[in-house]
Amino acid sequence: MTVEATFARWRDRIEHQLDARLPSPSDAPRGLHQAMRYAVLGGGKRMRPLLVYASGRIFTADESALDAPAMAVELIHAYSLVHDDLPAMDDDALRRGRPTTHIAFDEATAILAGDALQTRAFSLLADAALPAQLRVDCLQTLAHASGAAGMCGGQALDIDATGHQQPLQDLERMHALKTGALIRAAVRMGALCGQAPAADLATLDTVASALGLAFQVRDDILDVEASSEQLGKTAGKDEAQAKSTFPALLGMDGAKAHLRTLTEQMFDGLAGYGEAADALRALARLAVERDH
Amino acid sequence: MTVEATFARWRDRIEHQLDARLPSPSDAPRGLHQAMRYAVLGGGKRMRPLLVYASGRIFTADESALDAPAMAVELIHAYSLVHDDLPAMDDDALRRGRPTTHIAFDEATAILAGDALQTRAFSLLADAALPAQLRVDCLQTLAHASGAAGMCGGQALDIDATGHQQPLQDLERMHALKTGALIRAAVRMGALCGQAPAADLATLDTVASALGLAFQVRDDILDVEASSEQLGKTAGKDEAQAKSTFPALLGMDGAKAHLRTLTEQMFDGLAGYGEAADALRALARLAVERDH
Repeated sequence: MTVEATFARWRDRIEHQLDARLPSPSDAPRGLHQAMRYAVLGGGKRMRPLLVYASGRIFTADESALDAPAMAVELIHAYSLVHDDLPAMDDDALRRGRPTTHIAFDEATAILAGDALQTRAFSLLADAALPAQLRVDCLQTLAHASGAAGMCGGQALDIDATGHQQPLQDLERMHALKTGALIRAAVRMGALCGQAPAADLATLDTVASALGLAFQVRDDILDVEASSEQLGKTAGKDEAQAKSTFPALLGMDGAKAHLRTLTEQMFDGLAGYGEAADALRALARLAVERDH
Repeated sequence: MTVEATFARWRDRIEHQLDARLPSPSDAPRGLHQAMRYAVLGGGKRMRPLLVYASGRIFTADESALDAPAMAVELIHAYSLVHDDLPAMDDDALRRGRPTTHIAFDEATAILAGDALQTRAFSLLADAALPAQLRVDCLQTLAHASGAAGMCGGQALDIDATGHQQPLQDLERMHALKTGALIRAAVRMGALCGQAPAADLATLDTVASALGLAFQVRDDILDVEASSEQLGKTAGKDEAQAKSTFPALLGMDGAKAHLRTLTEQMFDGLAGYGEAADALRALARLAVERDH
């Protein structure tokens, strides 16, 4: 099976799992349930679930053991997008080529749906058919990555920085929290489910950190070079909002050189894992080569 | 030690614990951290933490084992208030006699602070110095009580019902989710930490359900009879927003009679536990007799 076919199978798997584990759109409160489903089931690359499956595969974890962490990290990601898109935050009307959740429903419903999606992430992990200690390990990993010391903190740093240029170090720290923390959590949870030894957890964490940063450098490049249609969201927003970006700080050539360095770090980190890491290698390649 | 002195000690305990376990106001992102602390450390009755300690006491749980669940349930409550007060939700400017979080800071920070407080609740439980299985049990309890099938769902039902009268059954279901679920979770987590047998968990759940409902009936009565100054929040909002309330559906005398019935249910449920349940009895009394 090609790696593309494996990804298609994993995407199909996570789509079905999420559909089954989100509340029914016909049960009250219907608006809330429908908004939760709209925010999650509207496509998306499913990069974080794929990272869970790909990382778990290196340590021959059962795919069924990986479903709950894969869903949980995607629900955290989805809730963060719903809240980030709100008028008081990024005020975005378009996401994945569709109206954002607060446009399709209303602001109150979008706030609540985001809240309930975050809760669902943790309840799915707490309920998972995994040993209690492994559930706790995954819960710790995901919660630390999501909160004030992770994704939420990164989002706050991003808001604080809007309107003035940041030094490269601050920009990298912001992204390490805002998007990197969740990507690292995805990779770590996959490895935890495969009972990876501590040394491997550390190696994979280095790979995941580089992958998270590479993903963001690529995002900044795409924001300049791609069209809104291609992205499924408004292009050119970074410059319009006077946000610090890698191309702005390093120049476009510098940003692309940075991306190549990060790519090398990822492949060096995965060098010892042979074919078992092919899926994770392919995801690393996707992160740096994607055009949307 | 009188029960009032015990409550004062528990309030002091939870205040110190929360202060120590929330992120530092001087670390970046400072606005986020300060807003999180503002939302949590600004007083409040600490009803839910007290319920955890009081319930745990019945089963002689160590107070130190109860700290994490007590904090976690208070953080969920605090985050829900921050989000409920937002302009797109209840649009409230006053809470506990102080500006609400989005007034004291800004909307984006309030949304993020609420998000990060929810996460912190789950990370505190995941990190607690408790056996893994007990952590998982508490995490399940709190997550189920907080999400679409609990508090968030109740809030959505409340929004859906605003502007038209609900039948009593719907009103009770809404409150059972919106405020009752978290109160039941507090009582259950306390009992879980004391290794309460399943039969006791069921008995206490009945008590907690009555307590949650009684708390809300009293809230509705106070909204009519008390002043804003007394409440520390805007009085008379239910009528202004055309919300269904117990006094509106049952009349003021009917609402007070309902409160007495619920009180009897609580005391009947606790009858078998002797002095060990005195603190929980006192909290039941507080819920129905409070004037703010």
